[in-house]
Amino acid sequence: MAKVILVALGGNTIKLPNEKGSSEEQFRNCRKTALYISKIVKNIDPEDRLVITHGNGPQVGNLMVQQKNAQDIVPAHPMDVLVAMTQGQIGYMLQQSLVNHLKEMNIKKSVSTILNQVLVDRNDPEFKDENASKPVGNFLTQEEAKEIKKKNPDYIIKKVKPGSGLCWRRTVPSPDPISNLDGDVISKLIDAGVIVIASGGGGIPVLEDEDGNYNGVEAVIDKDLAGEKLAEIVGAEIFFILTDVEKVKVNFGKPNERALGKISYLEAKSYFEKGHFLAGSMGPKIKACLRFLENGGERAIISSLDRAVDAYHGKTGTVIEKK
Amino acid sequence: MAKVILVALGGNTIKLPNEKGSSEEQFRNCRKTALYISKIVKNIDPEDRLVITHGNGPQVGNLMVQQKNAQDIVPAHPMDVLVAMTQGQIGYMLQQSLVNHLKEMNIKKSVSTILNQVLVDRNDPEFKDENASKPVGNFLTQEEAKEIKKKNPDYIIKKVKPGSGLCWRRTVPSPDPISNLDGDVISKLIDAGVIVIASGGGGIPVLEDEDGNYNGVEAVIDKDLAGEKLAEIVGAEIFFILTDVEKVKVNFGKPNERALGKISYLEAKSYFEKGHFLAGSMGPKIKACLRFLENGGERAIISSLDRAVDAYHGKTGTVIEKK
Repeated sequence: MAKVILVALGGNTIKLPNEKGSSEEQFRNCRKTALYISKIVKNIDPEDRLVITHGNGPQVGNLMVQQKNAQDIVPAHPMDVLVAMTQGQIGYMLQQSLVNHLKEMNIKKSVSTILNQVLVDRNDPEFKDENASKPVGNFLTQEEAKEIKKKNPDYIIKKVKPGSGLCWRRTVPSPDPISNLDGDVISKLIDAGVIVIASGGGGIPVLEDEDGNYNGVEAVIDKDLAGEKLAEIVGAEIFFILTDVEKVKVNFGKPNERALGKISYLEAKSYFEKGHFLAGSMGPKIKACLRFLENGGERAIISSLDRAVDAYHGKTGTVIEKK
Repeated sequence: MAKVILVALGGNTIKLPNEKGSSEEQFRNCRKTALYISKIVKNIDPEDRLVITHGNGPQVGNLMVQQKNAQDIVPAHPMDVLVAMTQGQIGYMLQQSLVNHLKEMNIKKSVSTILNQVLVDRNDPEFKDENASKPVGNFLTQEEAKEIKKKNPDYIIKKVKPGSGLCWRRTVPSPDPISNLDGDVISKLIDAGVIVIASGGGGIPVLEDEDGNYNGVEAVIDKDLAGEKLAEIVGAEIFFILTDVEKVKVNFGKPNERALGKISYLEAKSYFEKGHFLAGSMGPKIKACLRFLENGGERAIISSLDRAVDAYHGKTGTVIEKK
């Protein structure tokens, strides 16, 4: 019984928070990440299919800094184009690293990265400036914020931290993914046994206009929610979110803090509704897991990269099952 | 009898020389380019397959400027990563534009962009600094050249124009493509009827080390030579180079200048060997056409985008045939 497994990689698996993000650093992280993924490949049935998606926050942040610094010479690009560029950058680094590890382990699997557009809805509440919720790029002083706003009147810049100093940030809408526009091609490739890297950075966000044309939009889609949409389309049985914690916690930071092991869909939903998970961190991951199980998925796992194989075998991680 | 047609797009089909390269400009050019390509799709047999490749010179140039300007804050990336980023950027713009035109024309074809690595040989003569032949990025003053060399000791910077002023440029090796590392996946997709965009910017250049690992390298592969290698791998019958001239000329700029129409492989080879085509311009295109015919291709066409359909039907363009 061949299964489809969708692995979603957090941004920290490619660029560590304390790193500047040189190619050397990012390749080193990608190789480490790819080693763990190749161990998953070794542990699953040879007939099982793997699809990989990844975040791109730090990479888009770096690109934004580069664009801002050269803005008077070279035009800056909007978010859709930046996401496309990071799909190229990260897809290349991950694909090459994974191919090398699979070759070394004598596993004969092709790996391919697909540029991937994801449809969003122009009526999504996030497209109202006051609702836009995804901070991107550097923290700014009020002065810098004003200067950037002057040069780019369309930008939404919000105060993201109380107090003074570096507490402003450019903010873009984070609309819900409606559908993955490259789902048919991705399905064809996984059916052919190819390990596919897709929906990077949540996918390139596009709207459909009245004439049926697709156009990019200034937004960033949450990579776990977009990954869930992709998981649906390719009929994945397992949705595997790899992040920096071994298990998800409830009552986080409180005396009764507790790590979650194997739990049911209803338990997870109840914790989610009670507000145990932060909006900018574990919240969208749990939301994505719940959606996955509602849409026909069998098992959602959240764990860390270095415990991935054990979590796959049910020995650790937070495992959420339909019933 | 279904045919495979490989179309190679010149850099000017995406960014015009007099443009700064904003996303608006590049999308406008991509839409125009995609309109002509969709007309080709309409004119070929529905069973015929199309593979598209493209240049990336102006886009990599812009990225290099952005990276240089932010170098003290964000690390600059090597050429392999920059090529990957432009494959993302241009692939996205072309794919979206083409999908929109095909939808409008009610042609049901999927379009997909594949991140694409191309293997080169570490013993290629271009990897000797004195042989490196591909100028990349901006023209520099001697002072700027010195400053960049100081910050990046590994860079090769050459005098590219006689005289004084802006006559220095960063130069990278332009090695011959050995093989397309994603050929099997690309073949699978075109067999399934997908229009594939691949080998962008000549492909991401990689070397294979003693252990069989692939690693990126500071180089740029000629997009027409890489396109030819891809054409071989997918068994293309027609290699279609779209550039800014309707026909190739011999005795260029002389009183006996003449545009070439339908010619044989041997004629083309003879003109090539007599030095009629410039190294930085028509030379590699003719070289790629000759190789294509030597490696089993049937017909190589060089023409302009707006005459593409007529050239496909043999009404214009320079058409080189095996015999």
